[in-house]
Amino acid sequence: MNVRGKTYRAVWMPGRDVVVIDQRLLPHRFKLLRLRNHRETAEAIRNMTIRGAGTIGATAAYGMAQAFLEGVSLPKAYETLVTTRPTAVDLKHALDRVLVEAHDAKTAVAVAERIADEYVARMKRIAEIGCPLIPKNGRVLTHCNAGWLAIVDWGSATAPIYAAHRKRRGVFVWVDETRPRCQGAHLTSWELLNEGVPHKVIADNAAGYFMRHGDVDLCIVGADRIAANGDTANKLGTYEKAVLAKENGIPFYIAAPSSTIDPHCPNGDSIPIEERSEDEVHFVGETRVTPRGARAANPAFDVTPAKYITGIITERGIHKPGEVRKLWRQ
Amino acid sequence: MNVRGKTYRAVWMPGRDVVVIDQRLLPHRFKLLRLRNHRETAEAIRNMTIRGAGTIGATAAYGMAQAFLEGVSLPKAYETLVTTRPTAVDLKHALDRVLVEAHDAKTAVAVAERIADEYVARMKRIAEIGCPLIPKNGRVLTHCNAGWLAIVDWGSATAPIYAAHRKRRGVFVWVDETRPRCQGAHLTSWELLNEGVPHKVIADNAAGYFMRHGDVDLCIVGADRIAANGDTANKLGTYEKAVLAKENGIPFYIAAPSSTIDPHCPNGDSIPIEERSEDEVHFVGETRVTPRGARAANPAFDVTPAKYITGIITERGIHKPGEVRKLWRQ
Repeated sequence: MNVRGKTYRAVWMPGRDVVVIDQRLLPHRFKLLRLRNHRETAEAIRNMTIRGAGTIGATAAYGMAQAFLEGVSLPKAYETLVTTRPTAVDLKHALDRVLVEAHDAKTAVAVAERIADEYVARMKRIAEIGCPLIPKNGRVLTHCNAGWLAIVDWGSATAPIYAAHRKRRGVFVWVDETRPRCQGAHLTSWELLNEGVPHKVIADNAAGYFMRHGDVDLCIVGADRIAANGDTANKLGTYEKAVLAKENGIPFYIAAPSSTIDPHCPNGDSIPIEERSEDEVHFVGETRVTPRGARAANPAFDVTPAKYITGIITERGIHKPGEVRKLWRQ
Repeated sequence: MNVRGKTYRAVWMPGRDVVVIDQRLLPHRFKLLRLRNHRETAEAIRNMTIRGAGTIGATAAYGMAQAFLEGVSLPKAYETLVTTRPTAVDLKHALDRVLVEAHDAKTAVAVAERIADEYVARMKRIAEIGCPLIPKNGRVLTHCNAGWLAIVDWGSATAPIYAAHRKRRGVFVWVDETRPRCQGAHLTSWELLNEGVPHKVIADNAAGYFMRHGDVDLCIVGADRIAANGDTANKLGTYEKAVLAKENGIPFYIAAPSSTIDPHCPNGDSIPIEERSEDEVHFVGETRVTPRGARAANPAFDVTPAKYITGIITERGIHKPGEVRKLWRQ
């Protein structure tokens, strides 16, 4: 999508290096980062230079291709890459595909490229499928960043929004700040500004206020993992917004590629939830918000039970949460 | 309550000046501010040097006493003080009392002192009445700061917590950060640390997560205004937490002095909601979280409908929301 009028993806591989947009510096600085081997690529996933299920998947696939090019132990490289983030299922899918489908360095790069391209093609399908859900002059609430930065290009939750905007349907977006890491304020707002989509950033606490006042027509968020019964793990706070949407009669959609569905997870309780550093709560940038000596708790994700989800938009259609199990079997 | 082992109130009047704890500098700096006339006192309310319904009420009363001492036009001073914050009903109550009960400067100071002392006495009653609601080793979630900083001493939501802690009942507190102004992280955590109450600060998005995981036994929050039908205006985000508590079968209590009940507001829809500066969303301290050029929306309060409220704890007892109308008539 557009950055200052020029088109970018969140990750690509020109030659032996992997290039990513350093998402830690956004929204104030736009900088590309060149990752010279699979270890640097793994570190960029671990330290959240890049984040988002699809961008993690594509970056990990490129990292695995680098391991082929480097001629290092593939099981060790796989281990290095797969342990970077515990909750994202796309990470493991992508690595498995490169290992299974590649015969050598050249085919490994080709598989990684195909994985990235497939994300983009799926997101375009999600844009087409999801766009009609947004009424003319519709007001969409989104949480965290399920935008193009998170999933190579177009985004999952943002794809229908970008499509509606390009069709001049007058879409407006409420952007949850998404503490503690502020991906909504940092990334989604930055994306929408660059695409010219009208929006306002709000404190996470304000989502319920605007829902109750009739200012939200629908919610669309992304997913980090969807269990076989439709329970969905996504950024911390998604569960809160889903409960509030249901309470206020507002449709609540998940938008994600079908690769986010994990048939090995029977339900949300079996999805591992990453506990991240307390410092993400204590600090916003350089500013400490808690007193010295205070403790904090910081689960990175929560699980939204299927009963709060109106529909799951994938590249294959709009599904009731209970139907995603079948998708996997087809 | 205790600050580094010494006892303080949030506001007091030694002579002609009003002294307050500058709450804008907390939790990193503890500084007292001397307000030399009713205009400086009004400005301290307006710019949120002090905040919280009770502390606003007591400070305004002291400000009105200053106006008597200064010999200025009382209607003008009243106007200056009453327009500082639109949502807090205690502000108007306190000013009206000084005007009605005082005959001269000396009695004005005495009335203001009585107002402050009455807040403290009521908070001690709320502590006694609310404490038995907290089970042994109970885990309480609170939002924003309805602590002693907000209401002269003891606090409203925190009063039962402080009482339980002093009785060694093993109370633990989940402290919502409370964006955009972070009163939970800045003030409630600082209060609890100084009193030695075990607690963890969490992103507002995490409240639902811990509720769903069975880690919250009850919620206690404060109130800025309670309508005649029990609908309650409190800091933005309170409505979200109340809906989530109900969804998870967790009792949700409001703790506030009965002066917070406004019989002239039939229900929550008639409570005016202050819209504050976008910059509170754009910035955390010096750190800008949104991209330059982004817009934000920033309602300061929301209304929690009575149906989500288990009980309202006042100095007169624990009431069903529907019963507060009667309280006023007695």
